[in-house]
Amino acid sequence: MNLRVRKARKQDSKEILRLIIELAKFEKLAPPSKAAQERLIGDAFSKNPPFRIILAFDGDKAVGYVFYFFTYSTFLAKRTLYLEDIYINEKYRGCGAGKKLMKELIEIAKKKKCGRLEWIVLDWNKNAIDFYDRLGAKHMKNWFFYRYTI
Amino acid sequence: MNLRVRKARKQDSKEILRLIIELAKFEKLAPPSKAAQERLIGDAFSKNPPFRIILAFDGDKAVGYVFYFFTYSTFLAKRTLYLEDIYINEKYRGCGAGKKLMKELIEIAKKKKCGRLEWIVLDWNKNAIDFYDRLGAKHMKNWFFYRYTI
Repeated sequence: MNLRVRKARKQDSKEILRLIIELAKFEKLAPPSKAAQERLIGDAFSKNPPFRIILAFDGDKAVGYVFYFFTYSTFLAKRTLYLEDIYINEKYRGCGAGKKLMKELIEIAKKKKCGRLEWIVLDWNKNAIDFYDRLGAKHMKNWFFYRYTI
Repeated sequence: MNLRVRKARKQDSKEILRLIIELAKFEKLAPPSKAAQERLIGDAFSKNPPFRIILAFDGDKAVGYVFYFFTYSTFLAKRTLYLEDIYINEKYRGCGAGKKLMKELIEIAKKKKCGRLEWIVLDWNKNAIDFYDRLGAKHMKNWFFYRYTI
C-alpha cells in the first residue's frame, strides 16, 4: 500500500463521484441525483468553489476523500474549518488513510489561522465516533443541530 | 414599537458589539476579548467578509441581530444558509423581531438557491428551541456535533 493525499483536480471528477455514491450507500442516504452530481462537480472546480476536496490515493486509485469549507466563529472572531464529508473505502479502513486526511485538514486549519475544526456525525456510526475521539475531538453534547428545509 | 430589519453597516459597529456582549452573558459564555472584537468588526466589513450581519431595529435602536454565512451540502449540491448567531435583547422577546429576522434569512436563502438553513442551539435554551420548532425547523437528533480545538 502506498498512501498519499493531495488536492482534487478536475480530472478526478469520476473518482470523486464514485466515492460519493459509495458513501451515500454506507450512510443509508439517497445518493445525489444526476443533476446534483453535475452541479457538484461544476461547483467544485468553479472560480470561487464553495468547498474544497482532498483525495487519498493508494497508488493511482482514489480510496477516500474529505470535503471541507471555512465557516466563522463570532466568539473567537476566527475562521473554523468545517468538515462536510469524510469517506474512506471499506477495504482501506484502519490503514491510516482517514488519519492522514484529518492531519492534512488540521495543518490547513493552522495555516489559515482557524481556531477550530467542526463537523457532525451520525449517532450510529460508532467507528467514525471512535476515530474522532482518538483524534482528540470533542462531542459537544449540549448543542442541538437544527435544520430548516426550503 | 417600530420594528424593521436591514443589513448592518460599518457605522453600526458599536451597537453590534454591545449586543454580542449581551448574548455572551445570556449564553453564559465568555464575551469576546478586545482583540477578538476588533477582528470581528474588521472581518465583518472587509472586502470578502466571512459572514454577514442583519440587524433588527426599534426606531433607531438596534435590538437584535443574525450572523450568517453560506456552507454547502454535497448531497444536495446546493448551498446552505448557516445561522451562526441570533440574538434579541430580552426586552424585545415575543415581539416578532426574531421571526422577522428568520423570515428575512429564509428569503435570502431562497434567492441564493439554498436547499436548507442550519444552525445549532444550546440544549437548555428552551425559548429558542420552542421558537425554532414553531418556525417549522427540525431537530436532527441523530447527528452529533463534534469540535476539534487547535
